[in-house]
Amino acid sequence: MKMERDFHMMKGDNEFSYAKNSRVQKRAVLAAKAIVEKAVREVCIDLHPQSMVIADLGCSFGANTLLFISEVITTICEDHNNTNKESPMEIQFFLNDLPSNDFNHIFQSLEQLEQSTTQDCACKGLQPPLHFVAGLPGSFYTRLFPYNSVHLFHSSMSIMWLSQVPEHLDGSMNEGNIHIGVTTPPSVAKLYQNQFEKDFSRFLQMRCMEIVPGGRMVLTVAGRKSKEVFNAGGTTMIFELLSQGLRTLVAESRIAKEKLDSFNIPLYCPSADELKQLVQQCELLDISDIQLFEIDGNPMDDSEPAGTSVTQTAGQSMSASLRAAMESLISSHFGKCILEELFAVFACNFTSYIESDIEKSGITVITLYLQAKR
Amino acid sequence: MKMERDFHMMKGDNEFSYAKNSRVQKRAVLAAKAIVEKAVREVCIDLHPQSMVIADLGCSFGANTLLFISEVITTICEDHNNTNKESPMEIQFFLNDLPSNDFNHIFQSLEQLEQSTTQDCACKGLQPPLHFVAGLPGSFYTRLFPYNSVHLFHSSMSIMWLSQVPEHLDGSMNEGNIHIGVTTPPSVAKLYQNQFEKDFSRFLQMRCMEIVPGGRMVLTVAGRKSKEVFNAGGTTMIFELLSQGLRTLVAESRIAKEKLDSFNIPLYCPSADELKQLVQQCELLDISDIQLFEIDGNPMDDSEPAGTSVTQTAGQSMSASLRAAMESLISSHFGKCILEELFAVFACNFTSYIESDIEKSGITVITLYLQAKR
Repeated sequence: MKMERDFHMMKGDNEFSYAKNSRVQKRAVLAAKAIVEKAVREVCIDLHPQSMVIADLGCSFGANTLLFISEVITTICEDHNNTNKESPMEIQFFLNDLPSNDFNHIFQSLEQLEQSTTQDCACKGLQPPLHFVAGLPGSFYTRLFPYNSVHLFHSSMSIMWLSQVPEHLDGSMNEGNIHIGVTTPPSVAKLYQNQFEKDFSRFLQMRCMEIVPGGRMVLTVAGRKSKEVFNAGGTTMIFELLSQGLRTLVAESRIAKEKLDSFNIPLYCPSADELKQLVQQCELLDISDIQLFEIDGNPMDDSEPAGTSVTQTAGQSMSASLRAAMESLISSHFGKCILEELFAVFACNFTSYIESDIEKSGITVITLYLQAKR
Repeated sequence: MKMERDFHMMKGDNEFSYAKNSRVQKRAVLAAKAIVEKAVREVCIDLHPQSMVIADLGCSFGANTLLFISEVITTICEDHNNTNKESPMEIQFFLNDLPSNDFNHIFQSLEQLEQSTTQDCACKGLQPPLHFVAGLPGSFYTRLFPYNSVHLFHSSMSIMWLSQVPEHLDGSMNEGNIHIGVTTPPSVAKLYQNQFEKDFSRFLQMRCMEIVPGGRMVLTVAGRKSKEVFNAGGTTMIFELLSQGLRTLVAESRIAKEKLDSFNIPLYCPSADELKQLVQQCELLDISDIQLFEIDGNPMDDSEPAGTSVTQTAGQSMSASLRAAMESLISSHFGKCILEELFAVFACNFTSYIESDIEKSGITVITLYLQAKR
């Protein structure tokens, strides 16, 4: 499996697309909103750039990508200092993701964003700052920007994705599991942890070359509250249910057992302490703030009516959300032919889970607010 | 017709795609190669930027887009001054086109470009400079970049496309023609000229805000040798043959005559004098060089074998090339249903034309090499 080639959120606008199935990720963007606004204001005040360069790393596509841009524009628009100047600040946005991301989808929705931000600002008697939006394909574990060129980095729900399946995690070392599951040996959990340390350190090292002195980063990641690597709350549960679904397909001889044993999701949910430690090792960044949020893992819209079939709908909805994120990885390993059955089984398993007495956990999200030393 | 929404080269990789039908445009890129190399070297020597920002405006997608990037990288790579420095120059490319351009196609072909430039440079014992490629959707008749941020602008075979059908060109003013044709009234030709003047002046005005002092522009455009606006050589002939095709469909009642009369291609082929005059009016730019090339209008590969059916193949090939560029505009005005027949008729007409005794003209291409005043 090669992440650059095989991994992307599901393209387009159909029922299984990421654009239609990313409500949980939206909650993560909203949770970090206050910190993003603070970062934007602080960059304006401290660095007062003629043109502010802002990068969203692992942006994916759809409403969440645009939500971040509109948050930034609204914040700057409301900063009267800017509109009063003779040469008001301009903004250059870079939206980054792997080359297989649906950038066409983003670009075609920018006109709509333009209209809505202009309207929003006009309602307050303000004019949005001149801004430009570019797409930047590439892995954020490599260099993406020229040296000393970015004022603000943002990333939401992306950095927990590793650059690869953990090194040295081969064959059936993680038998029956697809992530850090109940029966995962501690040595395998350690390989996951090592890979995250290596990847996140590299991420910070690359960004430190690209950020201007005094620049800011707001990094939101799916993490865990517990020190215990085996317990990432709702995220652990979702992967456990997906793993159950795959085991069902093994039992039905739809998948070879070796195929399941060799599948490991390249994702790691760090704790706040782990993140802190890795930032401190980097030495070029100060931690201005670190916040932990518990967001609702229910992928349904709040407006969807409750009813007798609400748990079934929730199962289908979670299945569609997980599929939007995971389909590319699963089909590159197992083939496309198992997708329908696997996600149907997962939907049933998830419905049973929410109908059960098991205590339900939300998704833990950690936001780091960092400042590049001068 | 709205250019931002309706106009794009045909997407993807199939037989009618722009990627497969852009050999004439490739010749234009190659014709300007020496000037591009000169511009790159002069920016390096005069401005020696830590990171060089280069924009390709109206880049479309496919091999030609990548050809420009690889020309630049090779030029910088061969400049030993760069590789010897302690902190070698980095390059940030922006590939611009309208939002409906197939940016996904570009982004997915970048890995291949990476491999081939690394190989090319390695053969010469050199290392390519660190470079980053972003996609930038938007019309080049609007602001695209922050103030004072671009070192080199490039555009090949794009600026002859107008921002819109000429203002005040309504109804059947250009009866029976789709461009500046044989029976086009001089008043209509004047409207075309006015629109080009307005658009190109605006283009230069926008770029002058974005370019750094001393920055360069290399602009290649389909133009005309003749002072006579009615005679743009091969380009005029191609549109005349397309117009004939549409008149055939009117005669067969497949298209209403009013529909043909109201269709006008938003494209203008300027003369070198017209271009010069508009640049001089801008006052912020010096003309370093202006070159006129006559490129072969034959859309076939040189390697394609000659034979008895060579004129037929040429007809089909030109039809596919024209369709790759024009399909979006034609289908937004006439509907998709006429495409097959229209381009079949055009292929026959073009075959008859090359079999005829009429003197054949190439495509006139003009390259402007401009420098921003300091």
